[in-house]
Amino acid sequence: MNKINLTLDEIYSLARTALLNADSSEEMANIVADTVMRAERDGSHSHGLFRIPGYVASLKSGKVNANANPRVEKITPVMIRCDADHGYAPLAHARCFDHLVEAARTYGIAMAQIVRSHHFAALWPETEALAEKGLVAFSCVNYMPMVAPFGAKEKVYGSNPISFAWPRKGDAPVVFDMATAAMAMGDIQIAARDGRELPPGIGLNKEGEPTTDPKDIDPTTGDGMILPFGGYKGSHIAMMVELLAGPLVGETVSFETAKKDNGDGGPAGGGQFILAMSPEITSGTEDWDSSADALFVRLKSFDHLRLPGERRHKNRQDTGPRSVNADLVEKIRNLG
Amino acid sequence: MNKINLTLDEIYSLARTALLNADSSEEMANIVADTVMRAERDGSHSHGLFRIPGYVASLKSGKVNANANPRVEKITPVMIRCDADHGYAPLAHARCFDHLVEAARTYGIAMAQIVRSHHFAALWPETEALAEKGLVAFSCVNYMPMVAPFGAKEKVYGSNPISFAWPRKGDAPVVFDMATAAMAMGDIQIAARDGRELPPGIGLNKEGEPTTDPKDIDPTTGDGMILPFGGYKGSHIAMMVELLAGPLVGETVSFETAKKDNGDGGPAGGGQFILAMSPEITSGTEDWDSSADALFVRLKSFDHLRLPGERRHKNRQDTGPRSVNADLVEKIRNLG
Repeated sequence: MNKINLTLDEIYSLARTALLNADSSEEMANIVADTVMRAERDGSHSHGLFRIPGYVASLKSGKVNANANPRVEKITPVMIRCDADHGYAPLAHARCFDHLVEAARTYGIAMAQIVRSHHFAALWPETEALAEKGLVAFSCVNYMPMVAPFGAKEKVYGSNPISFAWPRKGDAPVVFDMATAAMAMGDIQIAARDGRELPPGIGLNKEGEPTTDPKDIDPTTGDGMILPFGGYKGSHIAMMVELLAGPLVGETVSFETAKKDNGDGGPAGGGQFILAMSPEITSGTEDWDSSADALFVRLKSFDHLRLPGERRHKNRQDTGPRSVNADLVEKIRNLG
Repeated sequence: MNKINLTLDEIYSLARTALLNADSSEEMANIVADTVMRAERDGSHSHGLFRIPGYVASLKSGKVNANANPRVEKITPVMIRCDADHGYAPLAHARCFDHLVEAARTYGIAMAQIVRSHHFAALWPETEALAEKGLVAFSCVNYMPMVAPFGAKEKVYGSNPISFAWPRKGDAPVVFDMATAAMAMGDIQIAARDGRELPPGIGLNKEGEPTTDPKDIDPTTGDGMILPFGGYKGSHIAMMVELLAGPLVGETVSFETAKKDNGDGGPAGGGQFILAMSPEITSGTEDWDSSADALFVRLKSFDHLRLPGERRHKNRQDTGPRSVNADLVEKIRNLG
């Protein structure tokens, strides 16, 4: 693969220009480009520049509203509803997070629900932003059907990622962000490209039979499907995500979402569930962090065991240029 | 195994008498006996009469307060704190659930935190009770260390179960309740008793090497340990449970809890996290259930696929006597 070095500013500008050329409002272009730049900065390439062609496709097809104006409403003092106006999710987050943070700090717990939004990024930007404000955060989104529920032979669930962040005093938060699918779509596609076999338990072919061939599993190019991680237990969690990010906030489940999507390659519309809690209020003490820190110290005492998010935070220390796929950069430059 | 038939009333009385004979207050004995009876009724034997010797042991050793008087405090309008006064958890639930339900119905979301309690039952009684009031519920507890974090070779996490319940209009709620350990402790002990080998991926021996011998895995009799379900992803969820049911509510993580426990065979002390949400408020519509029901109908369309909780709810229809272990009944009768 051809590689090229770009500074973080250049990555940001490349993304921003592509979005502006597709008629995005300046506010949305700035925020989405920042999300893309931070993904590349942290080494989260599958959520970085790789997503720009899809972001642009959905602006051009009109599925995503280039001039979205998200509206924030407080349904109750602890319930922030943000109608994203069919825009990209990061714009909705920017509009409602101050309200969410204030509510969680006042009442101990608060929930934000994002509806009619298009989520195409990782989830850690949301949970980590809240943890950096001293809050414990949980979030999930559902998506297009690509995962067969445990025991079924058809795609029903999305990749349905969940993210959780725990704040630390004077240290980066502990943050995990993971699909409830056994393997991320991007990794399956890369294995298909490289002609590599997958381990057993990742997916099924179109007949619903187990296979290790990533081409037969890939639900975006064929009729295969991914399995949930961890058997029936992971399948239960995937179901919970369908419900929390969908019906709980008045949005659809993944297989209903798919029926509405125009197939332009960009992100489908849908909902998001975000929970924020103040550990100082919930624990009733300023010393809410000591038992958690004892756990993290214990975990770090094991050879090679990394805390969730640690690798990303380490990558972030490097403010220098990033090596990115030259063909992708060329493709993005020519999108206009 | 010798079996004996007992009516549900007889199961309740057997449990209640054993608790009263161990000097439990009448209020706590009634509530715990009801929890035990409902577990047997639903076919959840590992949380039924099987637990009575442990309940009694901890009353006798004084670890559990036989005359506990749980105190409920509203820290904020949506944050119910219940200090269980070192009593059994079901008594604390009985004292605080009306407040939790009222807060969730008023504000859309509310949290109950149980501290200084002894939890020895399944989690579905809590989440299902909330779902029967029309609320979406989530709960988790941490416990004594028996699970090695992914990549570690020592016990750090408890079995750390999580439960989620979704209410349905005119139908039993959809409820899952599962350990984040790869296998429940009880099932490992039964395999050891029967001399059966376990599938790979369930646990490690005391050297931290993979084994399929349940005797080498059992963390209660040897120095082995269970693995989290689903590899590193399940391990992340087990970590989240440690934090939510521990430090978030001002309680300890499992390995700290173990240091305080007296080893009497009954349940260790600790915290519990309970979330309740009103789907009518969060979704902004009375029609909050239609997308969820569409998902459940889709899931039921697959051969042999059961919704979580379905088997228990079916067992419950049978109000007749239950076949229980005669030796266990004899043992409980002789506890006094």
